[in-house]
Amino acid sequence: MLGLSVPTDDAWVDAALGDLDALLVDHAHCEMKAASNALSMAVRHGDRPELVDALTALAEEELAHFRLVHRLLVARGLPLGAPPIDPYAVELRRVAGGRTATLVDRLLVCALIEARSCERFRILSERAPDASLRAFYADLLASEAGHYRTFVDLAVAEATRDGIDGASVRVRLAELSSHEGKIVARLGHNDSRNAVHG
Amino acid sequence: MLGLSVPTDDAWVDAALGDLDALLVDHAHCEMKAASNALSMAVRHGDRPELVDALTALAEEELAHFRLVHRLLVARGLPLGAPPIDPYAVELRRVAGGRTATLVDRLLVCALIEARSCERFRILSERAPDASLRAFYADLLASEAGHYRTFVDLAVAEATRDGIDGASVRVRLAELSSHEGKIVARLGHNDSRNAVHG
Repeated sequence: MLGLSVPTDDAWVDAALGDLDALLVDHAHCEMKAASNALSMAVRHGDRPELVDALTALAEEELAHFRLVHRLLVARGLPLGAPPIDPYAVELRRVAGGRTATLVDRLLVCALIEARSCERFRILSERAPDASLRAFYADLLASEAGHYRTFVDLAVAEATRDGIDGASVRVRLAELSSHEGKIVARLGHNDSRNAVHG
Repeated sequence: MLGLSVPTDDAWVDAALGDLDALLVDHAHCEMKAASNALSMAVRHGDRPELVDALTALAEEELAHFRLVHRLLVARGLPLGAPPIDPYAVELRRVAGGRTATLVDRLLVCALIEARSCERFRILSERAPDASLRAFYADLLASEAGHYRTFVDLAVAEATRDGIDGASVRVRLAELSSHEGKIVARLGHNDSRNAVHG
């Protein structure tokens, strides 16, 4: 699904549904990080209007999602708290070269993070215990899939500027996806923080 | 106006209108910084739902404004470029204690930055050379004034939690505003970067 090499394991689903409060708090932080990350990429590439435009549109949407999830937290009396360290995102970025990663790789990492959350939102839209949460995740699904496509398209456009063809970008995406699968498998369901990556 | 102790000087108006391109680029960066700053304050205070909610709503609005200004830049063929150093905001934050500033002071500094941009947007809404720009700034005016009030209200709410009354917050606002006036006067119109502070 959406370029992922490994599906989310049932044990993760059980763990996530077994602690919905932790899942929602993690989800809120993921949306906020996605928004901040898109803004910092936009600022770093202020000479590229199409990138700035796409990334800030995306950040605005992530922020709207954050506010929706935060409203659920407030309704449940859950504080957002401090942002947890996210070993999933840290390891995935490290694989792509960390601070020295190319812009194409950064965009592909963002695409994979979106793909994973999209996959997990689909599961939650089918298996969350109450109808309103199922509907909530069903609503978010489509936009996460859209974010995945946006990041892949931006990566292809960026590569094209550097004279690299779309097929090579797909090969690199598959390579990073294979690493992503290993990271997900290694972190497993014991780390509730690899819950979602909005 | 809105707690400002010193009005913007006519020489600034002439300088700003004399280089509309620089003004618009600066404006875009100010909106982006306002959004990022609101998000980082929200994340730092994740245990405070009402603050998180107000700051993220504000960031979403700043980001929508950023995108409007960025669209004007694109239409004029102007790249956003790298974010300039902003001596106005740096000095104002330093006066409030920099990294050691209390949350109340941070919120009041944000209020004053919004107040100054609101004041300047009013001038631009009256004196910008073309009707579409005048209308654009007239539209932004109201929300800047709203942001000013939001920050003052948040500062008062925060102080109240600490057992400090609203009147003392107003005294502190007047004190910071007096410093703000001196900073604006010192930076003058030679520094185009103290143009707007959306």
